Amino acid sequence: MYFFKNEFVNKKDVLLSPDDRGYYFGDGIYEVFRVYNGKIYEQAAHMQRLQRTASEVRMELPFTIEKMGHILTQLIEKNGLNEGTVYMQITRGEAPRAHPFPAQVEPILLAYCTEVRRPIATIHNGINAITLEDIRWLRCDLKTLNLLPNVMAKQAALDHGVQEVVLHRSGTVTECSASNLMMIKDTVLYTHPANNLILHGITRAVVLRLAHSHEITVKEEPFTAEQLLLADEAFITGTTVEITPILQIDGKAIGTGAPGPITRSLQSEFERTFAQ
Amino acid sequence: MYFFKNEFVNKKDVLLSPDDRGYYFGDGIYEVFRVYNGKIYEQAAHMQRLQRTASEVRMELPFTIEKMGHILTQLIEKNGLNEGTVYMQITRGEAPRAHPFPAQVEPILLAYCTEVRRPIATIHNGINAITLEDIRWLRCDLKTLNLLPNVMAKQAALDHGVQEVVLHRSGTVTECSASNLMMIKDTVLYTHPANNLILHGITRAVVLRLAHSHEITVKEEPFTAEQLLLADEAFITGTTVEITPILQIDGKAIGTGAPGPITRSLQSEFERTFAQ
Repeated sequence: MYFFKNEFVNKKDVLLSPDDRGYYFGDGIYEVFRVYNGKIYEQAAHMQRLQRTASEVRMELPFTIEKMGHILTQLIEKNGLNEGTVYMQITRGEAPRAHPFPAQVEPILLAYCTEVRRPIATIHNGINAITLEDIRWLRCDLKTLNLLPNVMAKQAALDHGVQEVVLHRSGTVTECSASNLMMIKDTVLYTHPANNLILHGITRAVVLRLAHSHEITVKEEPFTAEQLLLADEAFITGTTVEITPILQIDGKAIGTGAPGPITRSLQSEFERTFAQ
Repeated sequence: MYFFKNEFVNKKDVLLSPDDRGYYFGDGIYEVFRVYNGKIYEQAAHMQRLQRTASEVRMELPFTIEKMGHILTQLIEKNGLNEGTVYMQITRGEAPRAHPFPAQVEPILLAYCTEVRRPIATIHNGINAITLEDIRWLRCDLKTLNLLPNVMAKQAALDHGVQEVVLHRSGTVTECSASNLMMIKDTVLYTHPANNLILHGITRAVVLRLAHSHEITVKEEPFTAEQLLLADEAFITGTTVEITPILQIDGKAIGTGAPGPITRSLQSEFERTFAQ
């Protein structure tokens, strides 16, 4: 069961017009909400980011935040979802293809649930990554449908037999293809500042709060790929990956090449934030 | 009458699945062909660019170039198009939303005609522009559906009461929101080199060939927005705008503030390339 435009419909009845500006321009925004035990995790933060992105790309939201929250709740109920994600996207509306914003359009909301288990194996065992030049646009803080560079980056990882890419701009690490990145060096947690070059991850913010409350020094400042390779620990954060350790980058072990103690500690603390 | 997937259908029968990767990721490519007197202009060059973009984003084309050319011809015939454009896009195919390339997908072709008159008034009288920081990704040579920055830039122009934006990276002029840019200084034609920062425009290539054959010195090298403001003439090139003079940028007149003699000469030569 999907939500599309104004109603709950079966997936087969979601029939898009090619004039939907999501199709010709990627002129839309989205959020992926995590559902644990039938409840949405950090809903307010996701909604706030959705509002901010909408505002920055000058798009109207079709409903109030309250109404959209109600749609999410109903989707979860109607689909009997206990553990998974809700994908929600809003496009600018339907109009014959032309770059400028159309004069009169109704934004189009599409939302659906997917059952997704926690990736326990990779959370426990970690993943490997490669480095790749970050060629994305300069508003990576906006969660829009212009995702081709992320798609290409993710595919590059898989082609190299690893699970993620560490993106860098001329050597300065930004984030990964669909997650933020953090490293630990001499017990200090480093991550790229939340500016225009990275997504302001919800899990990133949760982890930084946890670090602060456990008296881990946090430095939100840029670091290089070379510095990353010399880190004691590294991990990615994201709505579905949660906190996943990185064991190797470009074939080189990070620290001992196993998930580190601060990563493990943050993982435990993170689990408490959604456990019953 | 549209062409969609494998057949000619009415527009109302073009019903897209949300799983079309064009919708969630902008994972698709496109071309806009110009039709003069019922014939496609520079068809081979457009097809070559389409092939190159497909190859760079590692997407299969659904048909041979010959077959796609035949589809274009049939579209023009079926729609009785004499003067206008044919829009053709190909998305990677349909699959449940996930970043990596899906294992088994059929690329999806969508194409349709639009009657579009030559914009004689602006070709003759010129347009005004503003400058804007170019925040797009670093593969602007690829004609993909990730067009949100172009949409935002074009809208910024309209909001400022002008028709185009001149994009620049930290001062170095690249191109416009949906056209290439050229300037004339001391009878030399300057334009940004055809690298990863600009679209390799078909009209751009035609104009450079015309310039060469009329012994106008061409320098494909970067220049700054400051240098552009001191140019004798400036114009944009594109499939529908052809050669359109720029009169003012950021409120400052370019040269005399009227279309210049080399621009006029190139316009005349350009018209000969498609006139019967």
